[in-house]
Amino acid sequence: MRTLLIIGTTFALAGAWLSGCGGADETRRTANAAALGSSAARIVEARNLTPENVEAALKTYMPSGQHDEFVMFASSGHAGQIIVIGIPSMRILRTIAVYTPESWQGWGFGMGNDVIAAGAVDGKTMTWGDTHHPAISRRNAEYDGEWLFIADKAHARMAVIDLRTFQTKQIVKNPIALSDHGGAFVTPDTEYIIQGGQYGHPLGWEYAPIEQYEEMYRGHVTFWKFDRERGRIDIDKSFALELPPYWQDLVQVGWGPSDGWLFMNSINTELHTGGVLEGEPPFETGVSQSDMDFMHIIPWRKAVETFEAGKFDRIKGFPVISLDTIRSEELLYFAPEPKSPHGVDLAPGGEFIVVAGKLDPHVTIYSIEKLKQAINERNYTIDENYGIPILDFDSVVEAQVEVGLGPLHTQFDDKGYAYTSLFLDSAVARWTLGGPYADKNPDQPWSLVTTTPVHYNIGHLATVAGDTAKPEGRYLVALNKWSVDRFTPVGPLLPQNLQLLDISQPGTDMPVLYDMPMGIGEPHYAQIIRADKLKPWRVYPEIGWEALKGAVSPNATTRGQERIERDGDTVHVYTTVVRSTFRPDRVIVREGDRVVWHLTSIERTMDAIHGFTIPGFNIMTSIEPGEYQRLEFIADKAGVYPFYCTEFCSALHLEMMGYFIIEPAS
Amino acid sequence: MRTLLIIGTTFALAGAWLSGCGGADETRRTANAAALGSSAARIVEARNLTPENVEAALKTYMPSGQHDEFVMFASSGHAGQIIVIGIPSMRILRTIAVYTPESWQGWGFGMGNDVIAAGAVDGKTMTWGDTHHPAISRRNAEYDGEWLFIADKAHARMAVIDLRTFQTKQIVKNPIALSDHGGAFVTPDTEYIIQGGQYGHPLGWEYAPIEQYEEMYRGHVTFWKFDRERGRIDIDKSFALELPPYWQDLVQVGWGPSDGWLFMNSINTELHTGGVLEGEPPFETGVSQSDMDFMHIIPWRKAVETFEAGKFDRIKGFPVISLDTIRSEELLYFAPEPKSPHGVDLAPGGEFIVVAGKLDPHVTIYSIEKLKQAINERNYTIDENYGIPILDFDSVVEAQVEVGLGPLHTQFDDKGYAYTSLFLDSAVARWTLGGPYADKNPDQPWSLVTTTPVHYNIGHLATVAGDTAKPEGRYLVALNKWSVDRFTPVGPLLPQNLQLLDISQPGTDMPVLYDMPMGIGEPHYAQIIRADKLKPWRVYPEIGWEALKGAVSPNATTRGQERIERDGDTVHVYTTVVRSTFRPDRVIVREGDRVVWHLTSIERTMDAIHGFTIPGFNIMTSIEPGEYQRLEFIADKAGVYPFYCTEFCSALHLEMMGYFIIEPAS
Repeated sequence: MRTLLIIGTTFALAGAWLSGCGGADETRRTANAAALGSSAARIVEARNLTPENVEAALKTYMPSGQHDEFVMFASSGHAGQIIVIGIPSMRILRTIAVYTPESWQGWGFGMGNDVIAAGAVDGKTMTWGDTHHPAISRRNAEYDGEWLFIADKAHARMAVIDLRTFQTKQIVKNPIALSDHGGAFVTPDTEYIIQGGQYGHPLGWEYAPIEQYEEMYRGHVTFWKFDRERGRIDIDKSFALELPPYWQDLVQVGWGPSDGWLFMNSINTELHTGGVLEGEPPFETGVSQSDMDFMHIIPWRKAVETFEAGKFDRIKGFPVISLDTIRSEELLYFAPEPKSPHGVDLAPGGEFIVVAGKLDPHVTIYSIEKLKQAINERNYTIDENYGIPILDFDSVVEAQVEVGLGPLHTQFDDKGYAYTSLFLDSAVARWTLGGPYADKNPDQPWSLVTTTPVHYNIGHLATVAGDTAKPEGRYLVALNKWSVDRFTPVGPLLPQNLQLLDISQPGTDMPVLYDMPMGIGEPHYAQIIRADKLKPWRVYPEIGWEALKGAVSPNATTRGQERIERDGDTVHVYTTVVRSTFRPDRVIVREGDRVVWHLTSIERTMDAIHGFTIPGFNIMTSIEPGEYQRLEFIADKAGVYPFYCTEFCSALHLEMMGYFIIEPAS
Repeated sequence: MRTLLIIGTTFALAGAWLSGCGGADETRRTANAAALGSSAARIVEARNLTPENVEAALKTYMPSGQHDEFVMFASSGHAGQIIVIGIPSMRILRTIAVYTPESWQGWGFGMGNDVIAAGAVDGKTMTWGDTHHPAISRRNAEYDGEWLFIADKAHARMAVIDLRTFQTKQIVKNPIALSDHGGAFVTPDTEYIIQGGQYGHPLGWEYAPIEQYEEMYRGHVTFWKFDRERGRIDIDKSFALELPPYWQDLVQVGWGPSDGWLFMNSINTELHTGGVLEGEPPFETGVSQSDMDFMHIIPWRKAVETFEAGKFDRIKGFPVISLDTIRSEELLYFAPEPKSPHGVDLAPGGEFIVVAGKLDPHVTIYSIEKLKQAINERNYTIDENYGIPILDFDSVVEAQVEVGLGPLHTQFDDKGYAYTSLFLDSAVARWTLGGPYADKNPDQPWSLVTTTPVHYNIGHLATVAGDTAKPEGRYLVALNKWSVDRFTPVGPLLPQNLQLLDISQPGTDMPVLYDMPMGIGEPHYAQIIRADKLKPWRVYPEIGWEALKGAVSPNATTRGQERIERDGDTVHVYTTVVRSTFRPDRVIVREGDRVVWHLTSIERTMDAIHGFTIPGFNIMTSIEPGEYQRLEFIADKAGVYPFYCTEFCSALHLEMMGYFIIEPAS
């Protein structure tokens, strides 16, 4: 222990520099201590910062050039994209364009058009999506940082993103569904990407009158086979299970003791179909009448075997294991869960599954062992509507913990704590797991430890790797749906508020560190991964790399090979792109020509990015170092079109242009 | 002066609490001082923060619920939108959708479709833009915070944004141009919004061979008349000036001594047309051969008089004052400016115009008085190409200051300093104005004071109200084009880096406070306004408000009036929207029907936002409290379509849905 005398009007922070250890740095710090301390203290005073504010500022500030330790992949809701956020600074690092064209990335304006078109609904191209639950690919139930998946709730689609390039590689439309929860969930080694259904409708989304809801409307869970080698979903090896039209919701796929099991909750056991103008209760009450809904429990490896054994029908050409087969093969069990549940979350060891019912102040913890035992012992009754075994609630529940009002979702840390979002209380609850977790912290097992208020109306929450077999704790992000008064007003459409909490200390210390306005979309769920698990490319591996094909294009152009070639009514333009010139810079075609423009960036410098547009053709593409891109369009109107680089690339960026001239046909 | 003895291993920040002043707060702070101080110091030590880091953290951190003092409106480049950023926290508060459909705002997916369609190019709807220079509306050459304008460089369009709602109200296509700089610039009282041209092309963008560049290709400056009452551009009162095909660039409109004058630089006095494959120099060198380019000086009020006197031709129906008339009416003068200039910026008092030529290490300062005198005395030669008077350089220049390599743009503060971005040096230069500004700071007039390195390749920069008659200083944002190593890697497409500098102290103290990754677009220019000058609405003024019309819709629906009405093959659905029910929740139509869906939010609570989508129709709209929206589409395929609220609005948000059912036609 040291004793120090410091003299000054104000002198905050002096100790920090004095307590550093050794060398030139130490000397500088010591020398600056008094002055700097007083300067920092003046700021604190002038800005009226509380001690908590000061600590939060120091914990979240990221000095220039230092990298955030964690990366959060957040869905963006009806923005249709992924938002990449650094933690603890809570800065948006970038978006990843998925379902919605995003011109500054070139996505959907040349690049990626085929990917978007492949996700068409009944031949109609959809140019947005509603993304809810991203899923990072896993090995051994831990994030591997290689791939990212995200579903579209509005159109029941699934997308695959390559985390080397942060680019979407594939969008597939679910042929049997027009409703899911917008969630992607992966098996422990990413063999399958799971997409659960949501609102019941006739599979294949054919017509059936609402009066035939019970007989004709259905739910589903779809298993998309992921081909890791190709980095694509293999549709031919994918299949679905027909489920009762209880609105399915979120999914968890087990590991460890729960390996081979899939858990999914549901919220409309009532089979309510609305009709508020016809004298029926509105959905919000009609769907919430029963005390219990059903957690769906599926032995998914057995379902795969059933599919591989050919025991399926086809709907719109897609393999679907029917309810009949599900019953005969015993592929589905129900466990009652408190009314209108939302979260279904697996403890790190895989032994407990936690359900939070938003109309019940408890979290309900099911023991995997007890679930398996009940199934083995056939300790169940049978659902009268669809003949599915219903396990006995009391025999499968391990514990219930009262956490507060409106509990939704739960995440975990490495200290035996669980964290549940409380929508109605606008708070995060920290509570303890029992069993093998009981010794990991000083608190009583299966008990509420503390709550931290958040602002406002928290939906999901995310801790570092908090839904995997190896959660890290450290930080928690509360994804609050309302911000109300938190930020400078920006009109009637307000941002959400993502709040960062420090969960590194055990017990009741769980402060909010940072308020981040989210004004570019509405994230639902998010996953947080250590930044060093990501291995993104800095530039493309070789010059002429065609990103979506993962190879050098045969049409890539090297310096000196730039040319314009006519082939009948088609004109091929082979262009090199490098600071600060497009070669060629004069491209002259005839009205009516089909133009195929091959652009090759011959840059090898990280961040030497160019853009390319020709006005009037709705073309805009971003060309990263080494990248090849192909654009195709009809030169349909004579005129003079200045094309130019849309990304400020160099001092002579404004001069990086050329003339595309369409001569009149006559 | 106080003397204090503090004992502890570490004890930073203690002084801050002790130096607070009085009351219960003071007591608490004193009590907490030792513990808090040591805690903060431990963070500083653990994170290895420098004294500069600590100060920056404390200056930029915004405690939960406290509002940023300033708001920056940044263009987003080829993202086509506006990005709203809080200062000093550098948090993105939200985007404003302009040229590019943005589904989470509903823009272009129901709402705003007509606005986007009105900006079509030759009948083709463009679904993106390239926005460069936003302009906040002004009164007396100061921001009034009421309107915001932004141009589209790719298609020569102009947009009007209402800052009560942060919504785009209008997009107009320039009928004579297919190229501009993407800039909007307003006259001191926002009578006109000015759009300068860029790459020369035949006006009306008709065909003309490149060999006829000198005779047939032209530049322009367009005057859009703003009707403040209606909040719209009045196209019938707008006009343009035909200019030589010297690539026009940025614009400044004068005030004070320069009132009535418009300044615009240009960069291709060489009339270069490329031809790099044909043996000509590339544009980057061909455009940079002359030592001098021409600042265009236009007596704009006289140009308005000329227009109002009917002295114009029409091109594609749009009034254009010809070069002949410009010569005869003396509407244009040239002042030589060092080669390839970019910035043209007016000092706060309106007495000096500052030009920075990126290939010249100086800023060149012109005296407005001298410019006027030279014009009055006809102290000029005549441009041999187009017959425009060229003023004598030496007689109009007030000073030149060597600031560094690659100077681009200049902004000002309230202390007589000017700030110029140095692209090649990657730095911000602070230098002094002379004349009436000489006494405002202790530094020598017309001299470089200091430079601060930035990371990397700064394009524009912005200070608070730094391009107005009343700049505030305080903060400067460096809009750096490259980030390279600054942030956690996110693939080959990297964010830009917006750095916040503290310019509140005079002299050489000008530290970087914050690095903000910009990964949702590429801002070029930005304007910073005091947040309290903005008066955005919290909710819509009345229930049923149709935002684009600025009035309650006759189709707005109140509670109890919900209904479905058939009129031949058209079905009108009158729906109320409130937590957590759509009324009606069953909408049944026949295949082939035209559906007109009227949605009225009957919410009056700030932030009670809902979304609405029907899968498969590419419809997505955001409905703010009190808002009315109209959707229209053809029910073209029989089936069952669950519609739902896309914004997590309440605990029973998932239940906020309904069934849209299309019965088969047969």
